[in-house]
Amino acid sequence: MGRVTSRHKILRLDGGESVRRSDTLAAEEPLEIRVSGRTLTVTMRTPGDDFDLVAGFLVSEGVVGATHDLAGLRYCAGTDDEGRNTYNVVDAVLGAHVPPLDPGLQRGVWTSSACGICGTAGIEGLRRMARWDVTADEVRVTPEVLYALPGRLRAAQKVFDTTGGLHAAGLFTADGELVCVREDVGRHNAVDKVVGWALREGRLPLSGHLLAVSGRASFELTQKAAMAGIPVLTAVSAPSSLAVELAEDAGVTLVGFLRGRSANVYANTRRVEL
Amino acid sequence: MGRVTSRHKILRLDGGESVRRSDTLAAEEPLEIRVSGRTLTVTMRTPGDDFDLVAGFLVSEGVVGATHDLAGLRYCAGTDDEGRNTYNVVDAVLGAHVPPLDPGLQRGVWTSSACGICGTAGIEGLRRMARWDVTADEVRVTPEVLYALPGRLRAAQKVFDTTGGLHAAGLFTADGELVCVREDVGRHNAVDKVVGWALREGRLPLSGHLLAVSGRASFELTQKAAMAGIPVLTAVSAPSSLAVELAEDAGVTLVGFLRGRSANVYANTRRVEL
Repeated sequence: MGRVTSRHKILRLDGGESVRRSDTLAAEEPLEIRVSGRTLTVTMRTPGDDFDLVAGFLVSEGVVGATHDLAGLRYCAGTDDEGRNTYNVVDAVLGAHVPPLDPGLQRGVWTSSACGICGTAGIEGLRRMARWDVTADEVRVTPEVLYALPGRLRAAQKVFDTTGGLHAAGLFTADGELVCVREDVGRHNAVDKVVGWALREGRLPLSGHLLAVSGRASFELTQKAAMAGIPVLTAVSAPSSLAVELAEDAGVTLVGFLRGRSANVYANTRRVEL
Repeated sequence: MGRVTSRHKILRLDGGESVRRSDTLAAEEPLEIRVSGRTLTVTMRTPGDDFDLVAGFLVSEGVVGATHDLAGLRYCAGTDDEGRNTYNVVDAVLGAHVPPLDPGLQRGVWTSSACGICGTAGIEGLRRMARWDVTADEVRVTPEVLYALPGRLRAAQKVFDTTGGLHAAGLFTADGELVCVREDVGRHNAVDKVVGWALREGRLPLSGHLLAVSGRASFELTQKAAMAGIPVLTAVSAPSSLAVELAEDAGVTLVGFLRGRSANVYANTRRVEL
């Protein structure tokens, strides 16, 4: 955990002035994710909560859905120039009952996108892969609870204040109580870390919960919410067209431009209590 | 190009009020990139400038470096439910002189990350892959030129104003004159589109140029700048630790937190004229 930030000498420009000083950077390092010894992917992430990240990635890709689907997680040997373990390779062992991996997943052509090259087919692929029916989730949330989420998420971010460089994902109850927060240089990793935490805690599906993310809402983040059974996803910035289409189809309430006391609800507006 | 944005009905919340209205979304669709008929990757992107995106991606991955390395680019047949071409599959044909693809690249384990799981090895991998020595680029840039870049980039963004949802990458001369701007839901795609445009125009390496991006500076974006021979990369937000390490090693001047009349220079500060 000592590697979540690092110090670096910079040249600070301010109008016509300049000064050399020290600055704190958000750490970014590659993480190789293996399943039973075979490389599945390499993601650039902020070190920390790596087991959560791997578990959540495997939930998002439809590989696992319950705590006992993961028989084990461990750091593999992988050493730097000086022979120290880099802690940048994690191997996941699946339970004996878990079906073998989709070959497409092992080729690096993810089900999230490659199950169909037109967006509609991608959405249908997710429907086939989903373990839980988010559509049936009858949770309700008030605008006031929504308005409070970005502030609570920001307050819970440990590293952002020192680096300004980390995205956050926060899991909340329908009353706006924070359950879990994770940070990462990549938004998708922050969400995977939250979902992986939930899997390892035996909390999936996350019905009745809200997921709040900094930044925008992409297809990928919406998919991750749906795969974890989360009925409400909120973002500070804009969603993409495909994120909205997927949210509609998967039954996820998608909230964007959640800033101050205003927001846009793009899909499944029925969960917002007016 | 009709698909760069789409309209969607939303529920707008504003304090205690709510209203149903129409909103413009930034389009996001998958693009499958093939080389000689074999799938290399699938990326979620905003449609438009797809050939530039594919060309730039191949530059970033070290596959091509000159216009004639690409013998051809074409849309493959790929149809939606109603039999229309989705324009979401592009096949690149390499020149006969271009060496065959690295098998790691075809397995979906990118050279950008998988050539080494510790960051240092990743940086060494880039050094081996690089075609141009950015370190030798003697371009100089003034703080005033740097301060002007975000405003000029934003002014050149066509779609952002209507959607708030697109990242931009802009190529500038050392005097701050805009050469090329591209937008995308993904920052890495916006940069690939700029670099691919330059490749197709016979302008690589982009020595003496500045690349300005919205958002943060990751390892990946810094790598793309270095692979295109760009000596100065500026970002509106924070860089990651590995982005700074890579910039130092590759000879790229890395500027972050470029806001108003202030900025942080993280690497190769000598190019900033004080």
